[in-house]
Amino acid sequence: MTDHGTLYVVGIGPGLPAHMTQRAREVITGADCVIASNLYQEFLRQDGTLPPEGEGGEAEPEVVRSSMGQQVELTREAFERVRDGEDVANVSGGDPNVYGKSDLVFTMADADDATDVPIEIVPGVTAALGGAAMMGAPLSNDFCTVSLSDKWRGWDEIEEKLRAAAISDFVVVLYNCWRNYERAIGILREERADDVPVGIFNDAGRGDAGRNVDGEAFTVTTLGEAAAHEEDVGGMGTSILVGTHETDTWRNDHETYLVTPRGGRDVEDF
Amino acid sequence: MTDHGTLYVVGIGPGLPAHMTQRAREVITGADCVIASNLYQEFLRQDGTLPPEGEGGEAEPEVVRSSMGQQVELTREAFERVRDGEDVANVSGGDPNVYGKSDLVFTMADADDATDVPIEIVPGVTAALGGAAMMGAPLSNDFCTVSLSDKWRGWDEIEEKLRAAAISDFVVVLYNCWRNYERAIGILREERADDVPVGIFNDAGRGDAGRNVDGEAFTVTTLGEAAAHEEDVGGMGTSILVGTHETDTWRNDHETYLVTPRGGRDVEDF
Repeated sequence: MTDHGTLYVVGIGPGLPAHMTQRAREVITGADCVIASNLYQEFLRQDGTLPPEGEGGEAEPEVVRSSMGQQVELTREAFERVRDGEDVANVSGGDPNVYGKSDLVFTMADADDATDVPIEIVPGVTAALGGAAMMGAPLSNDFCTVSLSDKWRGWDEIEEKLRAAAISDFVVVLYNCWRNYERAIGILREERADDVPVGIFNDAGRGDAGRNVDGEAFTVTTLGEAAAHEEDVGGMGTSILVGTHETDTWRNDHETYLVTPRGGRDVEDF
Repeated sequence: MTDHGTLYVVGIGPGLPAHMTQRAREVITGADCVIASNLYQEFLRQDGTLPPEGEGGEAEPEVVRSSMGQQVELTREAFERVRDGEDVANVSGGDPNVYGKSDLVFTMADADDATDVPIEIVPGVTAALGGAAMMGAPLSNDFCTVSLSDKWRGWDEIEEKLRAAAISDFVVVLYNCWRNYERAIGILREERADDVPVGIFNDAGRGDAGRNVDGEAFTVTTLGEAAAHEEDVGGMGTSILVGTHETDTWRNDHETYLVTPRGGRDVEDF
């Protein structure tokens, strides 16, 4: 009987591998098989985490292209590889728990009775954190994330969450904004003032290497104006951060920032 | 006139530097001055990000001990150092935006008219993500973070957020649990079923090097039983994740995991 390897579900952060953790790099570098989308493969080769194609010699991991709609087959294949003794790194952008691949892996392991397969989740910087850092300190109070994808659940559920978060004063970060974003902004406007600052961000941490043709960028607007920024909502690389009544825009000689203070205190009381 | 350096506010992730990003390591390694608590200094020396004390030679950055209550003085000192041309790395655990130092730095820069000081926030893996990874996939649906510290705001505000998040079905991650945690659990119980799984986690990613004497650990319990786990709520290293009605406990031959599926779908439909 062969000893099992481990199935690693690895988050590489929001952008280029500079925002990947050292643990994630170590796991990918040491894996026998790496499952990753074309975009992430490209990032990992640029950085040297994966060797240039065909030049890695015998130590080169087998690299398998991951694509939407193939997740079930690839996860089953990963279980088999782990049983054959391989370490498999299944690569997610951002953090694998935040709209990534980790729930699928456990759901499938349960459905397939794959209780023998060791699984380790390697966390990463999710887009909310990477995008917030690019914009300054817009997330420095309680926050929530809401996915706008209604593929697997009704819009009612999404709407209830948006409304509750807006009323109770969470900073709200919207994921999967390529559809439904105007509808979501409309609901938030019913519950929160039109002048609260909003940041629309694309390809945080990716420089010019992301999906958005304009490269890493953010636009500061307001909740009242956000729905008029359709040209900034690029697709899978876009998230939108909606501030609270405490969020402010602040400019220094270099940049414009969004800042949400933790509230209620003077500087001298820190 | 000297050219300014940059003030970096750097998140090193929830645990040992293995969970720090490569960008964070690069910034700390290249800084002229590093401001960090004793615990984080220790982590950074273990990993080689900072040289062993006194052995770094001329390239050794000046290391300044950060402590609660000194944040204002240290931030002012950092502004001065940056004006003198130094790169300063102010180290936060986790992510600097999530109950870290980034809002303070901007609030102080505003109060002191320090508009000349370049500021860059370097994101990190926050405890919610690091802890969730340790427990499996408990965060794989919309989630929120709520700090239980009422030092800077009324409990009413915290209570409203907890209630809204519980009713509208967010996974809830509680930070700063060293006080008020039983009160928070009591409010969540009024709105959410007693049998939803709860994970109490300590020192995610820290192995035996954290604040908690038992080392990195998590306890799986339920909302109804959570308040009876006072011995697991260790202090600043503790966070608590409260699942939804969809969160399940799953065991394989190696570990017990918490899994929150994104909801409503069969495996074959992924």
